[in-house]
Amino acid sequence: MSDINVTVLNAAESGERAVTTGTKAWELFADDPQVIAARVGGELRDLAHELADGDEVEGVAIDSPDGRDILRHSTAHVMAQAVQELFPEAKLGIGPPITDGFYYDFDVPTPFVPEDLEKIESRMRKIVKEGQKFSRRPVSDGDAIRELAEEPYKLELIGLKGGSSDVADAAEGAGVEVGGAELTIYDNLKRDGSLAWRDLCRGPHLPTTKRIPAFKLMRSAAAYWRGDERNKQLQRVYGTAWESKEALEAHLHRIEEAERRDHRKLGRDLDLYSFPDELGSGLPVFHPKGGVVKREMEDYVRRRHIEEGFSYVGTPHISKEGLFHLSGHLPYYADGMFPPMEMEGSSYYLKAMNCPMHNLIFRSRGRSYRELPLRLFEFGSVYRFEKSGVVHGLTRVRGMTQDDSHSYVTAEQAPGEIKHLLDFVLSLLKDFGLDDFYLELSTRDDTSDKFVGSDEDWAEATAVLEKVATDSGLELVPDPGGAAYYGPKISVQTRDAIGRTWQMSTIQYDFNQPKGFDLEYQAADGTRQQPVMIHSAKFGSIERFIGVLVEHYAGAFPPWLAPVQVQAIPIAERHNDYLYDVAARLAKQGIRVEVDESDDRMQKKIRNAQLQKVPFMLIAGDNDVEAGAVSFRYRDGHQENGVSVEDAIARVVEAVQSRVQV
Amino acid sequence: MSDINVTVLNAAESGERAVTTGTKAWELFADDPQVIAARVGGELRDLAHELADGDEVEGVAIDSPDGRDILRHSTAHVMAQAVQELFPEAKLGIGPPITDGFYYDFDVPTPFVPEDLEKIESRMRKIVKEGQKFSRRPVSDGDAIRELAEEPYKLELIGLKGGSSDVADAAEGAGVEVGGAELTIYDNLKRDGSLAWRDLCRGPHLPTTKRIPAFKLMRSAAAYWRGDERNKQLQRVYGTAWESKEALEAHLHRIEEAERRDHRKLGRDLDLYSFPDELGSGLPVFHPKGGVVKREMEDYVRRRHIEEGFSYVGTPHISKEGLFHLSGHLPYYADGMFPPMEMEGSSYYLKAMNCPMHNLIFRSRGRSYRELPLRLFEFGSVYRFEKSGVVHGLTRVRGMTQDDSHSYVTAEQAPGEIKHLLDFVLSLLKDFGLDDFYLELSTRDDTSDKFVGSDEDWAEATAVLEKVATDSGLELVPDPGGAAYYGPKISVQTRDAIGRTWQMSTIQYDFNQPKGFDLEYQAADGTRQQPVMIHSAKFGSIERFIGVLVEHYAGAFPPWLAPVQVQAIPIAERHNDYLYDVAARLAKQGIRVEVDESDDRMQKKIRNAQLQKVPFMLIAGDNDVEAGAVSFRYRDGHQENGVSVEDAIARVVEAVQSRVQV
Repeated sequence: MSDINVTVLNAAESGERAVTTGTKAWELFADDPQVIAARVGGELRDLAHELADGDEVEGVAIDSPDGRDILRHSTAHVMAQAVQELFPEAKLGIGPPITDGFYYDFDVPTPFVPEDLEKIESRMRKIVKEGQKFSRRPVSDGDAIRELAEEPYKLELIGLKGGSSDVADAAEGAGVEVGGAELTIYDNLKRDGSLAWRDLCRGPHLPTTKRIPAFKLMRSAAAYWRGDERNKQLQRVYGTAWESKEALEAHLHRIEEAERRDHRKLGRDLDLYSFPDELGSGLPVFHPKGGVVKREMEDYVRRRHIEEGFSYVGTPHISKEGLFHLSGHLPYYADGMFPPMEMEGSSYYLKAMNCPMHNLIFRSRGRSYRELPLRLFEFGSVYRFEKSGVVHGLTRVRGMTQDDSHSYVTAEQAPGEIKHLLDFVLSLLKDFGLDDFYLELSTRDDTSDKFVGSDEDWAEATAVLEKVATDSGLELVPDPGGAAYYGPKISVQTRDAIGRTWQMSTIQYDFNQPKGFDLEYQAADGTRQQPVMIHSAKFGSIERFIGVLVEHYAGAFPPWLAPVQVQAIPIAERHNDYLYDVAARLAKQGIRVEVDESDDRMQKKIRNAQLQKVPFMLIAGDNDVEAGAVSFRYRDGHQENGVSVEDAIARVVEAVQSRVQV
Repeated sequence: MSDINVTVLNAAESGERAVTTGTKAWELFADDPQVIAARVGGELRDLAHELADGDEVEGVAIDSPDGRDILRHSTAHVMAQAVQELFPEAKLGIGPPITDGFYYDFDVPTPFVPEDLEKIESRMRKIVKEGQKFSRRPVSDGDAIRELAEEPYKLELIGLKGGSSDVADAAEGAGVEVGGAELTIYDNLKRDGSLAWRDLCRGPHLPTTKRIPAFKLMRSAAAYWRGDERNKQLQRVYGTAWESKEALEAHLHRIEEAERRDHRKLGRDLDLYSFPDELGSGLPVFHPKGGVVKREMEDYVRRRHIEEGFSYVGTPHISKEGLFHLSGHLPYYADGMFPPMEMEGSSYYLKAMNCPMHNLIFRSRGRSYRELPLRLFEFGSVYRFEKSGVVHGLTRVRGMTQDDSHSYVTAEQAPGEIKHLLDFVLSLLKDFGLDDFYLELSTRDDTSDKFVGSDEDWAEATAVLEKVATDSGLELVPDPGGAAYYGPKISVQTRDAIGRTWQMSTIQYDFNQPKGFDLEYQAADGTRQQPVMIHSAKFGSIERFIGVLVEHYAGAFPPWLAPVQVQAIPIAERHNDYLYDVAARLAKQGIRVEVDESDDRMQKKIRNAQLQKVPFMLIAGDNDVEAGAVSFRYRDGHQENGVSVEDAIARVVEAVQSRVQV
């Protein structure tokens, strides 16, 4: 047993260490109960992996992204074992980790019912408790075929080893390394060493089933083998697994909250918008109440843009194709655009972006350096082809209104303008109640040829963005390869009320389109120079932002955005006129107010207003009429009686004008 | 000479009259110098026409539409005579009257130059002075061919007698009755009875050239024979003729004014908008200054709609075709729409109207009578296919933003809602400085099958509109056959500052789409009823209205709409800071202000501001700085010196807020 040298990257005792030959990865992390796998020379491995001389070794914690994938994939194995113990006729499909969980597909004679899932879950607990060992074993193709003779789907995957790329994808999903030199089987071994279960799998896995801290099965659904509807329908069971009971609870709470906040459901309940089948997928219509939110939002955002030195312009929704060739969007981006309309020998396209049209405004006459930065801004409705499968409510649509701006600046002005834009978008987002941000810096993939422009231009632009992003003091996450083809970008990621992340604003540096459009200005020295253009969308799209805000606020908009701001509630019909007077005074101050003159009793009226998430209720009965007062009720149920009408009006107006969340 | 009876319709002495056989039409109108032709049994005739027993005879005054056509056609003859006298080699094409004038085409070896037109005009005056008689003479085809042997184009028209319809059109333009039983030649006879000139022509004409009170040749241009570019290019001379020198002067003044006010030219000069070739025909872009006008207009119009009880909604620009079949626009209106985009097995169309989408909002949930009238309103951008030839600046575009509303009402509410809409649109137009209106009532053509719906429905809807229109007290002009296929409409016609008429608002009664969309509401008695919908566009389109306003105001927008409201003009550089302070105080009050800190001298700065039609100039020199004052100058040149800054600011703010024209 000669000594070998390994480099430990993130243990308590990091650095180069001499260990004996045959040392397993777990020995380096024995003092860290969070570590459940290792990254050796960049590859994920079991903790039982034997180290070689010169290896770089990194512990993988169970609550890291890779660690969670391994936990979930191991839990999928445990689930499959439980299923085959309970339903011996079940044949195995594939069982990969997915976002926040895992699934496994089974060929069973009858679909699972909820009681089945309970039984499976219960059997899984037993297996976890037993602490079965995940044991890796390389096998020849022949041995694998013999061992898995009863598993037709696994045999199919083995037979397809090295096959076409979609099969490779399916195998990848199954954790089967079809392209590699050898197959591996993972055995689940009981404490006594006997074989409890086994699966064809690339791994890695947890050391034992005991290392699964918390899991839950969610639901089952039908799914075609390999996603192809010509294949047999299997039963897919979804589950989730987490590094602690608390993390699982938090996840389940988030799901519940997300369902409660689902903007598609709230859009219906609050009569804000709908998605008529007649129009087509991803094309929302805004009803009167949703129209109020959209208008308030657009008015405010436009006002802020004008205050910040932007000019409001207007451009059409279609153009002949030449424009998009000039901008470089065609043919490259054609798949993301609607197909053309053929007319009078020309192809007209719906615009998928506003920049080419703003470039036409820039070059509609000669420009002087004195005019720069020239900031053009528009609520531009653009249309993009998204696959039907990914279209989702307002957050993934085919028709969207971008709050789109383009700043034309000298190269020297670019850093200042980018800082100006970043400060502006952050302040705008804060105005809408979002204040938990981090930044992403999307840069070029040097190995891809889809990025246009010289190395120097990319380096300079990236440096400018990186400096502004770093100076902002916000967390900065790199996104290599995520840039647009015409230049790098900063994007603002925002966490909502339940911790979900949404990409909001983008600020993109573009030295390519000014070249393609021959944009130029006359510099102070009389020479003609090419401006830099900086693209920026503040919310991405108004539609998506409304969807995000509905979920963030769970439909309870801050008063300034609420479709109805005040519901006036007469206790009896004889109090109607009194409240109509109050309502008229509120309306005069621009407040959106309704009087509930239905036959409902007061408690029902209050409940209706609360369901509609109206911020303020003004309730009046005999005493109030006599005293010139109202009961002032908030939607959270808090109520003050005997508030004078003057005071009530002042409170409402103050809350609306200060744009506070009540 | 036995007596015959004729009926005179509009002479001083109207009614049935017995006259002697051989009486000519002029004898009935001898006492009316305005009458230059007669309508006999519905046909236009020379005054020399011999009357028959039972004829109905009406005098045609020179200042009536028919009278002006006859005047202009006769003037075209005089022009052709003058041309052939001066240029004997000139061959005659055709010479019809057109809107506000006439033209005649000639085949000449060299194009006319302006000096030629002067010579021709001078010769025409001579012919007019001579009082040559227009004398009608029926001829056989053979005689016509012999007489016109030297006029190849006339021979072509004779040869084509009874030919294809486009030839018939050309002949019609030439005043040659090719389809009829006989040809006629008009001789121009001198006082001594000798032939001065002649032309193949259907007539009628003035009695003599002396009856041409005022004319002018305008310009010449090339034109292909019969409008076909495969034919020979002729020279077309345009002219105009009027019933009096005053009417001619007024016309020339209108042309000059219209050129000065041309919104395409002013759009360029004032940097408001442009029409980039890259986009395609009829697709304007609004530059920053045009964007200000558009935004102010839209904001104001939207605010007024909301005050009038409309809800602001939002719908996409495209839909699958089924929607437009449901509304009845397809296939009937397909030629007016852009061609479809084929995607995922569906045809998507750009919307050409917003109503079908508003119907989807109406039926997105159950409706109660308590919600009616439900008024949905949108700035909806629609796209319509207009032939390239008719596209014109902003006033005839392919992409337009309609200020479009749909009121859903019970049948009983319809009259009240139509009155509400008419009052509203008239008040809106007045807010924009237009106050000279008349109404047009467009009804069904009973002989056409393009109108959908029962006779009763049409009769009732027409009666409702007619009553509201009549009650308004405005002039009401019938427009039979001009209705939309789904119902009758009122349109508001507006005269601008130079007397031109523009069709603005429309109010349309629709009982068809509610049927097609199965729209219904629950009535007070619990039954399900179908609402009536009333379409209304206030300005037609925002683009067109901006074009009309630019021409109406000749670019000098009232202060509230002006892109720049105040130009601050420092007399020397040392006064810049003082005016920047004033500008900041104005900006704080929402005023759009610029400080001219160029190196130009004061007079040049004033001239620049006047060219840009800025309503107010605040000029400051040493004395002003000392006194805390400015010189307050209006764009008409009126100026007051020593106005305190407070007073100046107050004046500007007052003018903007009160939306007055200064």
